[in-house]
Amino acid sequence: MNTDWINTWRKCERRRDRANATHSLASLALAVALALPGMALAQPQEPGPRHVPAKVLAVPTDVSPEMQEIIARPLNPDWHDQWKTGEEARRYADKQAAGVVKTIPALLERMHVKMEASIMDGVKVHVVTPDDVPGQNRNRVLVHVHGGCYVLFPGESGTTEAIMMAGFGHFKVIAVDYRMPPEAYFPAALDDSMAVYKAVIKDTNSKNVGVFGTSAGGALTLEMVLKAKQDGLPIPGAISSGTPMSDATKTGDSFYTNEKVDNVLVSPNGFCHAATLIYAHGHDLHDPLLSPVYGDMHGFPPTILTTGTRDLLLSNTVRVHRKLRELHIDAALNVFEAQSHAQYGFDDRAPETKEAFGEIAEFFNAHLGK
Amino acid sequence: MNTDWINTWRKCERRRDRANATHSLASLALAVALALPGMALAQPQEPGPRHVPAKVLAVPTDVSPEMQEIIARPLNPDWHDQWKTGEEARRYADKQAAGVVKTIPALLERMHVKMEASIMDGVKVHVVTPDDVPGQNRNRVLVHVHGGCYVLFPGESGTTEAIMMAGFGHFKVIAVDYRMPPEAYFPAALDDSMAVYKAVIKDTNSKNVGVFGTSAGGALTLEMVLKAKQDGLPIPGAISSGTPMSDATKTGDSFYTNEKVDNVLVSPNGFCHAATLIYAHGHDLHDPLLSPVYGDMHGFPPTILTTGTRDLLLSNTVRVHRKLRELHIDAALNVFEAQSHAQYGFDDRAPETKEAFGEIAEFFNAHLGK
Repeated sequence: MNTDWINTWRKCERRRDRANATHSLASLALAVALALPGMALAQPQEPGPRHVPAKVLAVPTDVSPEMQEIIARPLNPDWHDQWKTGEEARRYADKQAAGVVKTIPALLERMHVKMEASIMDGVKVHVVTPDDVPGQNRNRVLVHVHGGCYVLFPGESGTTEAIMMAGFGHFKVIAVDYRMPPEAYFPAALDDSMAVYKAVIKDTNSKNVGVFGTSAGGALTLEMVLKAKQDGLPIPGAISSGTPMSDATKTGDSFYTNEKVDNVLVSPNGFCHAATLIYAHGHDLHDPLLSPVYGDMHGFPPTILTTGTRDLLLSNTVRVHRKLRELHIDAALNVFEAQSHAQYGFDDRAPETKEAFGEIAEFFNAHLGK
Repeated sequence: MNTDWINTWRKCERRRDRANATHSLASLALAVALALPGMALAQPQEPGPRHVPAKVLAVPTDVSPEMQEIIARPLNPDWHDQWKTGEEARRYADKQAAGVVKTIPALLERMHVKMEASIMDGVKVHVVTPDDVPGQNRNRVLVHVHGGCYVLFPGESGTTEAIMMAGFGHFKVIAVDYRMPPEAYFPAALDDSMAVYKAVIKDTNSKNVGVFGTSAGGALTLEMVLKAKQDGLPIPGAISSGTPMSDATKTGDSFYTNEKVDNVLVSPNGFCHAATLIYAHGHDLHDPLLSPVYGDMHGFPPTILTTGTRDLLLSNTVRVHRKLRELHIDAALNVFEAQSHAQYGFDDRAPETKEAFGEIAEFFNAHLGK
């Protein structure tokens, strides 16, 4: 047997997705049966959906070596997990958390911050304090809401972004360890985050308070402002919403253009959507408190948004940016080359991470009261 | 013959690209010959390049109907044109220009602006004047450098963006009709644009002068600032660089992630690269005056950048944004949902077009002297 042919075929097949296997093999057989010279293999010439051929994307060379390593990782092997219950999701979350927690002592050290578990108004938090807080930040507090599709990163495992923000930005950060399934469902994460926010603004002028988070935390950040408006509370001085899960209804073009390009979330039909359904617990996914892109953003504070060109939530980040800008709200957008979902927070030693947190710190510095 | 099978196959085949036809048919035959149950069709599990399966992208519903129509268009049928000479490129450009020029009288009317051909320092220009110039813009001038891969949109056909900017922003605009192949090659476009800029800043304080353009025009905008710095000239007060061809070396991840997703430029190996090679005329493509992303951007003026999530030059827009922000330059980035290359300027009647030009006008208003 001609092995060149086999290699050619294998090379071609590696480009295909396992999920398409049945369909592919059937159509392959048909193709051979029916193949005639000149039969149209062309792209559609009429308006309509876009047919994109399979492709192989090289690891880009125009990012740092640290980021290349992150971008080169294969697709998240658990992306197609379809948890059905809070218990199932929590079992996964606990296993993952155990790995993350081990990395925290070294991270605290590199970031020159201290962390302490505490309770605020009945809600578990971690208070993260930099060794060095410059004068302008002495009366400022940041509230952090972690990501993880509303089910991942319980306890200390949800604090890595808070630690990096405290370290890179020299802010005091209160990280909310909100209740998650199976302990509690929508709107528990939001309620707990609001309880902490309300406790914080008792002591600190809300203009001096920033709120930030990534992914589900980016959505919660937006949801908190919507809720503060609804409840007639003062809004924070500025917010940072990183690649927010701003639309839980699978709307947003990059869900599809970046499907299997993003190696973190991978697909709109993956674990993160399953997790969101668990948290939503039957609640309407169009509710702006689950899909904040549909919320009324009049009166929003200055907002900085962060995403990457390979991010599954690129669209749902820029859609929020556009909504804010349509209302002439001071909103900054940073898009990082070739990064998938939330990768600007994956490794504090990557220069892009320092850059992303540097941007957010600069934004808070420019917009928070002192 | 079972026609369902034929339809299934046709549907499958329509997803393939004509360019892959030979390879596909060969591998199809092999696949049937070799297909065995359980043979690995999986994604790679090791770090390295990303294998992305073929996909069909629906027309997004979260943009205006006008933009949906633009996004739904099939791939630019001429994308694989590989012009070899300036003459060849000009034949295409002239044909295309004839179509564009017909649309200009109605555009001028809708935008409430007047246009007049003129010569400045030996360079052909069009002077575009809005019927209504508000007080704050009386002493301001914008210089426009059109796009078209350095070979397209000669004469009046290069003025549509200038007309929209004048109309939406109420600025006086001078549109440079720079020499193009086969008339002249690198650095003629830049030289002509600089000649006009120098003529403008004789009469108008450079702080009151903005420069803007899209695609090759977005690159020329950046190249003009680099050249002004080199020549010790005062830099403009602010610039707008729309989806700039900032890297002519095919570097930039979205050249690949958005290949055949972008229906305008389509591929890094299409007409636009061929055209750039014609203009470069053997000159090193890494020269910052052809690939401004490699330029030294210290001292750049406030800059606004615009792109879309499906844009082949998404990466090369955000890379410029990041370079500017690393230098703490005031740089705004707007990314429009689901748009391919430069589509924010395709139809002045699309709300997204008004929004994009509104952003640029607001930016010039905030940063230009009066």
